[in-house]
Amino acid sequence: MYQSKLFTKTRKEAPKDEVSKNAQLLIRAGFINKEMAGVYSILPLGLRVINKIANIVREEMNQTGGVELQSTALQKKEVWEKTNRWDDKVVDNWFKTQLKNDTELGLAFTHEEPMSNMMTNFVSSYKDLPIYAYDIRTVFRNEARAKSGIMRGREFFWKALYSFSKDEKEHNEYYEKAKIAYKNIYNKVGLGDKTFMTFASGGTFSKYSHEFQTLSEAGEDNIFICDKCKIAVNQEIIEEQNTCPECGNKDLRQEKAIEVGNIFSLGTKFSKPFELKYKDEKGEDQFVFMGSYGLGISRLMGTVVEVLSDDKGIVWPESLAPFKVHLLSLGKDEEAEKIYNQLSEKGIEVLFDDRDTRAGEKFADSDLLGIPYRVVVSGKSLEAGGVEFKKRNSEEGKIISIEELIKQIS
Amino acid sequence: MYQSKLFTKTRKEAPKDEVSKNAQLLIRAGFINKEMAGVYSILPLGLRVINKIANIVREEMNQTGGVELQSTALQKKEVWEKTNRWDDKVVDNWFKTQLKNDTELGLAFTHEEPMSNMMTNFVSSYKDLPIYAYDIRTVFRNEARAKSGIMRGREFFWKALYSFSKDEKEHNEYYEKAKIAYKNIYNKVGLGDKTFMTFASGGTFSKYSHEFQTLSEAGEDNIFICDKCKIAVNQEIIEEQNTCPECGNKDLRQEKAIEVGNIFSLGTKFSKPFELKYKDEKGEDQFVFMGSYGLGISRLMGTVVEVLSDDKGIVWPESLAPFKVHLLSLGKDEEAEKIYNQLSEKGIEVLFDDRDTRAGEKFADSDLLGIPYRVVVSGKSLEAGGVEFKKRNSEEGKIISIEELIKQIS
Repeated sequence: MYQSKLFTKTRKEAPKDEVSKNAQLLIRAGFINKEMAGVYSILPLGLRVINKIANIVREEMNQTGGVELQSTALQKKEVWEKTNRWDDKVVDNWFKTQLKNDTELGLAFTHEEPMSNMMTNFVSSYKDLPIYAYDIRTVFRNEARAKSGIMRGREFFWKALYSFSKDEKEHNEYYEKAKIAYKNIYNKVGLGDKTFMTFASGGTFSKYSHEFQTLSEAGEDNIFICDKCKIAVNQEIIEEQNTCPECGNKDLRQEKAIEVGNIFSLGTKFSKPFELKYKDEKGEDQFVFMGSYGLGISRLMGTVVEVLSDDKGIVWPESLAPFKVHLLSLGKDEEAEKIYNQLSEKGIEVLFDDRDTRAGEKFADSDLLGIPYRVVVSGKSLEAGGVEFKKRNSEEGKIISIEELIKQIS
Repeated sequence: MYQSKLFTKTRKEAPKDEVSKNAQLLIRAGFINKEMAGVYSILPLGLRVINKIANIVREEMNQTGGVELQSTALQKKEVWEKTNRWDDKVVDNWFKTQLKNDTELGLAFTHEEPMSNMMTNFVSSYKDLPIYAYDIRTVFRNEARAKSGIMRGREFFWKALYSFSKDEKEHNEYYEKAKIAYKNIYNKVGLGDKTFMTFASGGTFSKYSHEFQTLSEAGEDNIFICDKCKIAVNQEIIEEQNTCPECGNKDLRQEKAIEVGNIFSLGTKFSKPFELKYKDEKGEDQFVFMGSYGLGISRLMGTVVEVLSDDKGIVWPESLAPFKVHLLSLGKDEEAEKIYNQLSEKGIEVLFDDRDTRAGEKFADSDLLGIPYRVVVSGKSLEAGGVEFKKRNSEEGKIISIEELIKQIS
């Protein structure tokens, strides 16, 4: 893409009321626009990142047998009253609205209720199960304070998968698959070595649920890591047992972390109120055994920015970068355009800085945007035999030939 | 995809309160689920169709120079007060909600205001223009009555592009490109010959705006077609002038139609209140000249169902079908699976009905689902030398060899 065709511009300063590092950098680099506290529109560069995260998540969910659908934002009171989650005293972050005839509606913050309700249309026999249905969409949470940028938005992208199994055994098998899928996701987005599966309270149907927590000073949570097992426990669990649930180790290391996902055994908590039942092989009625698996897509984007950026700007992992290559022309547009075309023909995503701007500004913008490979075409580089090639996270560039460039990044 | 892995099932009856043909068929076939009047979740089969429509629209918008972003649902009062569109007496289909501190928010039904407001961050010089920014997302309209299924939802997918040009001349050039892009879209989704560009009132900045209207008895609009020019005028225009605006023809033919898109010259209606200005080549301040270009993605899906279905069910055009081939195994799963694998390897999208169900039910479901090519593998077909091949919209199938099948649909 030609940078001159991209309407966004970098900014020296983020809005004064923006206190989080992730939103400051993303706004300055033109990935998002702040509409109000906790509400950000996603600009073209940002949408490319969101789509890449969503596709990684999609791939892993499909791998576990997941089928994608799209649920709705507008929610019916009667459906949520069945589980006693309609009342604002019970769930304190609802956004509510009304139809013209004053019927109250809610804006979805999650979808256990409507999904359980819908599945009664499709589940009647053991042959209909298991079902793994997931959804990638924006949901709404009426946060009293919204100070963590896109890590805790009032409107944000997230993925939720709901599993519907015949019994606890079938559920547990899926739950283990989901753990692996989640680990794969964090590995693919470049947070693998900083993300810990973290034991959390389980509710009625399982001793534990599991969070995925990424180490960061910007995190709102404390976790307690067992370095032997490479897992962690959360604050609730440490207060109860103060040991690693896997090996009994008492020597747990406290760290700040961002919750980037959670998986939960729901058992029959939702299937009972919705009478989500099936006939088993013997013709007897059984309740469906459920699980839920959440992951904040925009939060993950914010976390990557918090964890991987440096003092010059964002550092995208290749898997999420809006473009693989940032091609900077310093007065050599014609030569640069040839390279742009060569790379584009090979299917390589290139942002071509063809703007009529000082070199210093182009370099600073490139660091701020955080595209993995920077390629500079200048009179100097051409004289020296090619282009200057530099990785975003290395200090020094080197001159390489155009053939060598294509080889290196293909 | 294996049909046994798809959790949806066909239904003999749609919900009693569902009066529209499009939603009745889409619910019965398992493409959508009714959450409440005017609010439908999109099930896996439906999401495949929505994504195909969205991708066709995306392709055409990109072709005109469009850049995609994702705006927000939550809207700030102050932004909409600038154009006097916050008040429910002025705009009667707002959904409103509140933050915890009682600050009123709206749910977006369109985005002229936030887009104009945002662009003040990015537009300062004539060099920054033109900009063509678009958005594909769900928007919300608080319809008093919602009786047209997914053709007039309270929450629905739509595409909106906003153009920001230096002056009327630059705007008009884009406007003509947009007309072509819209025509291409209706051609690609199979509605080309039934869709008329329709002259409508223009507002302050142009004599006309343009709607795109698809002939259908289910339409809420009346249009008046000039058969010489292959264009139409809407009710407003006919009342004013009663002639074709292109050739002066008075012999216009009245038809019922569904509005499937509209394009509008906004001029400086929004750029003035938001002070969206730029410095021209002489250094003088000028207001940006805007246009808006809307298209309902879910409405288009509903329109295709209204217009192209028959008494047996939906008839998808190949470009929108959730799968290209519906492969039915009648007791020959092993042989059918081989064909499934062969076609899938060639990148052909196949829904494989591997269910343990009566032949009659499989045939009826296949007609209801409306996948373009039906391939039946049975003892009889194999004896006769291959598979039975039938197009959804032809009466008779014929036996062809597997090699011939692959040739025909590749």
